[in-house]
Amino acid sequence: MNVYAKPVARLIDHLARLPGIGPKTAQRLAFHILNAPAEVALGLARAVEEARNTVRTCSICGYLTDQDPCFICRDDRRRQDLLCVVERPRDVVAMEKARSFRGLYHVLQGAISPMEGIGPEQLNIRKLLQRLEGGTIKEVILAMNPNVEGDATALYLAGLLRNLDLRLTRLAHGLPVGADLEYADEVTLSKAMEGRQEIK
Amino acid sequence: MNVYAKPVARLIDHLARLPGIGPKTAQRLAFHILNAPAEVALGLARAVEEARNTVRTCSICGYLTDQDPCFICRDDRRRQDLLCVVERPRDVVAMEKARSFRGLYHVLQGAISPMEGIGPEQLNIRKLLQRLEGGTIKEVILAMNPNVEGDATALYLAGLLRNLDLRLTRLAHGLPVGADLEYADEVTLSKAMEGRQEIK
Repeated sequence: MNVYAKPVARLIDHLARLPGIGPKTAQRLAFHILNAPAEVALGLARAVEEARNTVRTCSICGYLTDQDPCFICRDDRRRQDLLCVVERPRDVVAMEKARSFRGLYHVLQGAISPMEGIGPEQLNIRKLLQRLEGGTIKEVILAMNPNVEGDATALYLAGLLRNLDLRLTRLAHGLPVGADLEYADEVTLSKAMEGRQEIK
Repeated sequence: MNVYAKPVARLIDHLARLPGIGPKTAQRLAFHILNAPAEVALGLARAVEEARNTVRTCSICGYLTDQDPCFICRDDRRRQDLLCVVERPRDVVAMEKARSFRGLYHVLQGAISPMEGIGPEQLNIRKLLQRLEGGTIKEVILAMNPNVEGDATALYLAGLLRNLDLRLTRLAHGLPVGADLEYADEVTLSKAMEGRQEIK
C-alpha cells in the first residue's frame, strides 16, 4: 500500500537512504521540504548538486575541497614540517575546531578493516609516502581513531615510516576532559595511568 | 573560522535548516552525500527538486499530490459519505497506515493557534463547507490532534457544522494499546473511564 504521491514517495525514499534517517524522520523531512517556501527546497537541491559536482578531494592531502590544492595545503602560515595523519575529512574538521594544531594534514580516507575488506592498498598511503620523500616534514602525528581499525592502521603506518628520518607520534590517550573517574572504562583508565604526567 | 570548502559549508547550512537536524548531523549527512556515488547525491537533489516542482495540495481535500484530484479523492471504492477532517497531510498517512478508515479526507493544513497567529481564516475551512453543501457527506469525523490547538479547532468546527444535517463524531480518547495503566496521565485515564464500554 502506498499512501504517498509518487514524487513524495521517491523523496522519502531518497532521504531514508541517508545515515541515521529512518522512514519516520524521512517522512517528516519530506513534508517539511514540501511545505517550506520553494526557495528553501530548491536551495537544498542546488546545494547538494553543487557540492557533489564541485567538491573533490585535495590532490595533496585528501581533504574535501572545491579548489586544488585545498585551503589548508595552500596556507603557508601553517607549519610545513608537521603532518597530522587522520582517517577521514571529518577528523580534519574536529582537529581544526579544537584549534590546537597548525600544521598540515593527510587524510587516509578510511582505516584498515579486514571485516570490510579494506586493506592498506585501499587507503591514501602512497601519496603519504611521496609527501614524506620531500624531506620537509619532520614529524608525523598518527591521529587514527582509538579503536581496533584505527590502532591497526597506526601500527601498519608506524612500521612503514619507522626507518624514515622523522619523529613519529600519536595523540595521548587518557581521561576525556569533564569525565568522571567513576565512569571511565578500564582501558582508558589504565592508559591514563600509564601516560601520567609530572605536575610542575 | 570556516574549516569547510564553500560548497560544503553551503550544503551543511542547508541541511541544518531541516527540522531535527543539528549542525553535527548536518555535517555527517553532508560528508555522506559527498562520499556516496554521484548518482546517490544527484538522485537526492533531483528527488527534492521534482517533488517540490510537481507536488501540490489536492484542490478537493488538501492532501499532497502530483495529480489533481489526488488518488484518494479519485478512488470511488471509498465511502463517499464519510469525511475525516485532519490537521496535516501526515495525519492522512497515519490514518491510511492504520487501515481502519475507507472514506474521504479533508486536510485543514494546520490548527487554530492564537500563539502562532493562526485563526480559522488561515485554515482550509471554506472548501470544507463547500464540500458539505453537496449533501453527499453524511458523517464528519473531527480527527484533530488531542491537544489544545486541536481541541480548539474541533470545537470551532463543531460550532460551524452543528446545524448541518450530518452526524458529527470525533476519535475516541482512552488508553493507547500496549500502555501501562500506571504510566497513563490523569486526563487520559479519566477520558478512558468516561468512555468505558460494555463488555459483550
